[in-house]
Amino acid sequence: MMSLGDSSVQIQTKVLPQDSWTQVSCPCCVSKQVESLVLIQLSDNVQPVTKRWLISLIEASKRHGGAALLAHPGEDECGDVIVVSAPRCTFLKATEDLGLCKKYHNEDMVAFSYHDRDNFSNVDDMQEFLTLAERQYIVKNELDSLQAQKKQRIPGVPEAPGVLEAWENISYLSCLCAVGQKLVRAGVIKDIFPVHDQQRLNDLGRRWYSEKQIWGQPLDAIQSYFGSTVAFYFSFLDFYTWALVPPAFLGLVLTFLLPGGGGVVKEQAVEGVMEDDDDGPSVSGHMVQAVFSMLWSTLFIELWKRRSSSLSHRWGTLNLAERFAGPRPGFQGTLGLNPETGRLEPLFPEWQRQLRVGLVSLPLVGLFMGLVVLGMTGFYHGEALVQGFHQDSGSLFSGALLYLPSMAHIVYTNMLGNVYHTVAMQLTEWENHREESSFQNHHTTKVLLFTFFNNFAVLFHIAFYKQDLPLLRKRLASMLIGNQLMNQCTEVVVPFIVDRFLSAAHKKEQEDNLEMDKLRAQRSLPPFPGLFAEYIELLLQFGYLSLFSCVYPLTAVLLLLNNITEIRGDAYKICKLFRKPFSAPVSNMGVWQTAFEVLGFVSVMSNCWLLLLSPRVQEFCLEGGISGKNIILVAILVEHVLILVKMILAFMIPDEPDWVRIKREQIEFNSMQALGQQKL
Amino acid sequence: MMSLGDSSVQIQTKVLPQDSWTQVSCPCCVSKQVESLVLIQLSDNVQPVTKRWLISLIEASKRHGGAALLAHPGEDECGDVIVVSAPRCTFLKATEDLGLCKKYHNEDMVAFSYHDRDNFSNVDDMQEFLTLAERQYIVKNELDSLQAQKKQRIPGVPEAPGVLEAWENISYLSCLCAVGQKLVRAGVIKDIFPVHDQQRLNDLGRRWYSEKQIWGQPLDAIQSYFGSTVAFYFSFLDFYTWALVPPAFLGLVLTFLLPGGGGVVKEQAVEGVMEDDDDGPSVSGHMVQAVFSMLWSTLFIELWKRRSSSLSHRWGTLNLAERFAGPRPGFQGTLGLNPETGRLEPLFPEWQRQLRVGLVSLPLVGLFMGLVVLGMTGFYHGEALVQGFHQDSGSLFSGALLYLPSMAHIVYTNMLGNVYHTVAMQLTEWENHREESSFQNHHTTKVLLFTFFNNFAVLFHIAFYKQDLPLLRKRLASMLIGNQLMNQCTEVVVPFIVDRFLSAAHKKEQEDNLEMDKLRAQRSLPPFPGLFAEYIELLLQFGYLSLFSCVYPLTAVLLLLNNITEIRGDAYKICKLFRKPFSAPVSNMGVWQTAFEVLGFVSVMSNCWLLLLSPRVQEFCLEGGISGKNIILVAILVEHVLILVKMILAFMIPDEPDWVRIKREQIEFNSMQALGQQKL
Repeated sequence: MMSLGDSSVQIQTKVLPQDSWTQVSCPCCVSKQVESLVLIQLSDNVQPVTKRWLISLIEASKRHGGAALLAHPGEDECGDVIVVSAPRCTFLKATEDLGLCKKYHNEDMVAFSYHDRDNFSNVDDMQEFLTLAERQYIVKNELDSLQAQKKQRIPGVPEAPGVLEAWENISYLSCLCAVGQKLVRAGVIKDIFPVHDQQRLNDLGRRWYSEKQIWGQPLDAIQSYFGSTVAFYFSFLDFYTWALVPPAFLGLVLTFLLPGGGGVVKEQAVEGVMEDDDDGPSVSGHMVQAVFSMLWSTLFIELWKRRSSSLSHRWGTLNLAERFAGPRPGFQGTLGLNPETGRLEPLFPEWQRQLRVGLVSLPLVGLFMGLVVLGMTGFYHGEALVQGFHQDSGSLFSGALLYLPSMAHIVYTNMLGNVYHTVAMQLTEWENHREESSFQNHHTTKVLLFTFFNNFAVLFHIAFYKQDLPLLRKRLASMLIGNQLMNQCTEVVVPFIVDRFLSAAHKKEQEDNLEMDKLRAQRSLPPFPGLFAEYIELLLQFGYLSLFSCVYPLTAVLLLLNNITEIRGDAYKICKLFRKPFSAPVSNMGVWQTAFEVLGFVSVMSNCWLLLLSPRVQEFCLEGGISGKNIILVAILVEHVLILVKMILAFMIPDEPDWVRIKREQIEFNSMQALGQQKL
Repeated sequence: MMSLGDSSVQIQTKVLPQDSWTQVSCPCCVSKQVESLVLIQLSDNVQPVTKRWLISLIEASKRHGGAALLAHPGEDECGDVIVVSAPRCTFLKATEDLGLCKKYHNEDMVAFSYHDRDNFSNVDDMQEFLTLAERQYIVKNELDSLQAQKKQRIPGVPEAPGVLEAWENISYLSCLCAVGQKLVRAGVIKDIFPVHDQQRLNDLGRRWYSEKQIWGQPLDAIQSYFGSTVAFYFSFLDFYTWALVPPAFLGLVLTFLLPGGGGVVKEQAVEGVMEDDDDGPSVSGHMVQAVFSMLWSTLFIELWKRRSSSLSHRWGTLNLAERFAGPRPGFQGTLGLNPETGRLEPLFPEWQRQLRVGLVSLPLVGLFMGLVVLGMTGFYHGEALVQGFHQDSGSLFSGALLYLPSMAHIVYTNMLGNVYHTVAMQLTEWENHREESSFQNHHTTKVLLFTFFNNFAVLFHIAFYKQDLPLLRKRLASMLIGNQLMNQCTEVVVPFIVDRFLSAAHKKEQEDNLEMDKLRAQRSLPPFPGLFAEYIELLLQFGYLSLFSCVYPLTAVLLLLNNITEIRGDAYKICKLFRKPFSAPVSNMGVWQTAFEVLGFVSVMSNCWLLLLSPRVQEFCLEGGISGKNIILVAILVEHVLILVKMILAFMIPDEPDWVRIKREQIEFNSMQALGQQKL
């Protein structure tokens, strides 16, 4: 821990011995105690000379290609870890570079400026000023910026892999995905991760997923401990779960009250529509559900955008300066002057990236989608073939053959999925995005499209090609219930068992611990797999709900039940079962928000056509004497009008609350004024 | 003319006598000669005391509620004009407030800063530094900001209308639409307009619409003389005319080459489609035209956006600070501190405006559209009725009655249009927009929707309800040719005659002129009616072209011919026939660009359904054995796919060229840096 004032509460009781930390070179930073933030896990066979070289590099000043951080060799010089922390001035400068907003003395959130640091609150106490997640991210970020200033050998490493070119980023240390990573290839570094703070973690857990805490989540504490990426996921999950209440309520009403009651009323009225089988809602119920679903999904997304922007303001990420920061590790380019910031860095023309995306990535993604469709067609074809054969022969062998098409399809789909994931990652690397967020967005979009297509192609096929609504209803119900059972199993039951099993061992260990052993223990946990799977799950849910809800009105009820446990399960998982992840400050959910928005539009179309196809509506129209062609024309009209209404609604609801807009414009105005005041 | 250095060319040879201008109070401004920029036309019966009061107000400093301008009483104190100009420091401060970019000493375009003024090029010579249009707009803007600081009587005006409340904007002087305008109501000011500079104007005319100048327009000179609003219109007209070449070429090929040649090929091939009547393109021609039209309209808009942003950079309007300027005259609100800029000004909450737009304006506009449809229905109904009656009786009276429905319809449409225009203006006033551009956009959108609906409802009715494509083709051709003849008449022939007639009188006058008489002569010209009608004309053209072009492929050819003359006609009109308009610096075409974009989307739908309805396609499908229902489903699919393609295309083409993006981000980076450097 480091502080100038001593007013801050000492949260960590046991820390690494102070004297073995490297010394702070900066005169303004007086460190009494240094907080362990990030652990660098070295290979077992690393030479002490290499370790010493790495430590000296980490603590060297930026002018000398170092990271200006503090390093601790663990127990001794031969150990296979380096513990890293940062001095105050490195934190403050990085805060400005990231463009984080912090509390000004007048309680406003203002973009932090190192020059003006004394006017910000808590600027003397890094534990108050920056959240734990921010501090760890800053350390990672500084490690990523390590650069070899001249060609040199890595001491203690054999010649071949151990040569660093001038200006080569030594690091990509923490960027686990960067394959070309020099030090990893050279066998020096095995891994790098932020360390958990057990006391804060237990604290957070008590407020988050204990028995007492059922409504709401401690979002600010999550943001502070896990960072805004994770906090945005849980905020969204929370918001989404609450938003499910109205459609769940409507679904219950339509299923249990109206079909009986509504049917009776219908029979009394001279509507001519009979409610003979009740495994689906009535025509009017159908329509109510479809229109409601459209309005609901629009409102949901628009209100989330507002919530998201006010969270972003609260967390100081409204004004991030990622564009003006250095490029992400892994970015390739010819060295030149960045025309915007005037700094020396690799450059890569935007149009070339656009070309790569448009002319290579897009067609390849399309190709894979085509392969999914091909697989599905093959499956249906094969099934028909086998079924015909079985009906003809009726032997045991042909009976066994019946399983062949679906097994082949499963194998095909899995293989395709694996190949696609590799291709998507390689393509996105090759597209050579400058910013990490841009990289993530493009990668996510690719995987998303495929996953989505893979999951919904069958349902769309049943709905629009076979036009078999009862089958769709059954398939939807079984998918929902099956998915949820699986989820509950993997996300609640398994963690619970693991916890009972782990916590015993854990408690024993707690008795005779040293700070170093505690850190070491975290290495045994698996790395956090990211929120990708969680978001995909939500998106698929939302898809089932908004695309097909008018077929199966109970969808929302099932999802609501699922999500209430999901929140706690996810919370438990991220706290207990994995290493702490690095988390970049972000201002929104990024591409996921767009995905939900796009799904909202697709849902209008889907609901319109489902409504049109539903046998009741067709019956109703036929009895009304309307020709099939005219029904379709009416449906087209309705679809276009609904989309127009949706667009007008989305336009009318501002994406950020007024007070956030005013704050944002204040910042813009101030920076315009500042630009006017200074001579260039 | 005013200059510190004397290097600038003296363009005006005769100027008002120097000694009767009010004196510059600012010590930095040494004025040798003052340029007449704006003319305030007073009422005939204004008292000299009122005129003196107004002059003193205009030249008073801003702290005293004045405009810090220079005023000239014309010939004497009793005359009914005041000529206004501005000193250098007023110009420079206003340039900063507007957020105009000017050339820095390193040739970059940089947002002007008064503080840093010495580093900008030409800052000593206002005639070089600001364009004529900018200088005149600044004078207007300053006049608009006149405020009464305490309650006072206007001298020489009877009690009742002549009292100014404290903080009441005296002016709205130049805002001719502001009905509540105090001084106009009080009968002091009749009008206010910028004066022409005959020599520059003749110069511009020579380069613009003389016989020698056929290709291209002197856009920079137009921007400099008439301002960016006008320059953007002519740039767009130019761009659009060139863009018409490919569809015109395709139209010619389809009409004159393919129906014959293509038909022969078709008959040789075993396609089964016979080209028996040739008053329309073939099936494949149809398809080519529809798909081409979709791609063309997307590319056209996207490329225009790029052109527009590079023009905006060239003209220094990329970074306008309208949001941070004072509210527009006519804006109502309770006096308070603007939360963004911290200035005292009227405030009006954004959500209230949104509510007014959403809950009152939108439904009312919808109502009027409903009335248009009602009128059309009534017309068709009445016509059928009268025709039936005529067939039954066959008398002369019933023959005359045949004209009744269309006459009634014309009267109805005209009345509706007039009422609507008043309502639209009132509604937009009542919506209480803070910025002039927002006001204009909302007003334009309202009028646009109505005009568009009014013009295209009949065509849509024929196309999609009656499904009578030959009638549509005939109607389209007659509308196009009729409109063009009217245009040529009003925009080329009439101006030509007027010019012959006027120029004689004009030349005579030139002989014995004084500067003051020249200025006075401009009062006789009618005020410039704005570019609204011109843009509407282009938009309707674009509508005919993109919505229905696959029905009548020669549309583009006719439009191309029309626009080549249109450019010169419009140029002549704005130069010779009207008073010079005020022109605010703008960074794009505003809502017109959006209108063209929306039309592009509607055109995809329209073309898809027209294709579907075309008898050839229907025939073709029937012979192919495809049911009517399936054709429609295919058409739906095609429509959705085409819209998707269009959206991807629009997304892939960046809205601004790379170099403009870099310049813009440079500005952002610099202002972020500047904000970091300064203490708040």
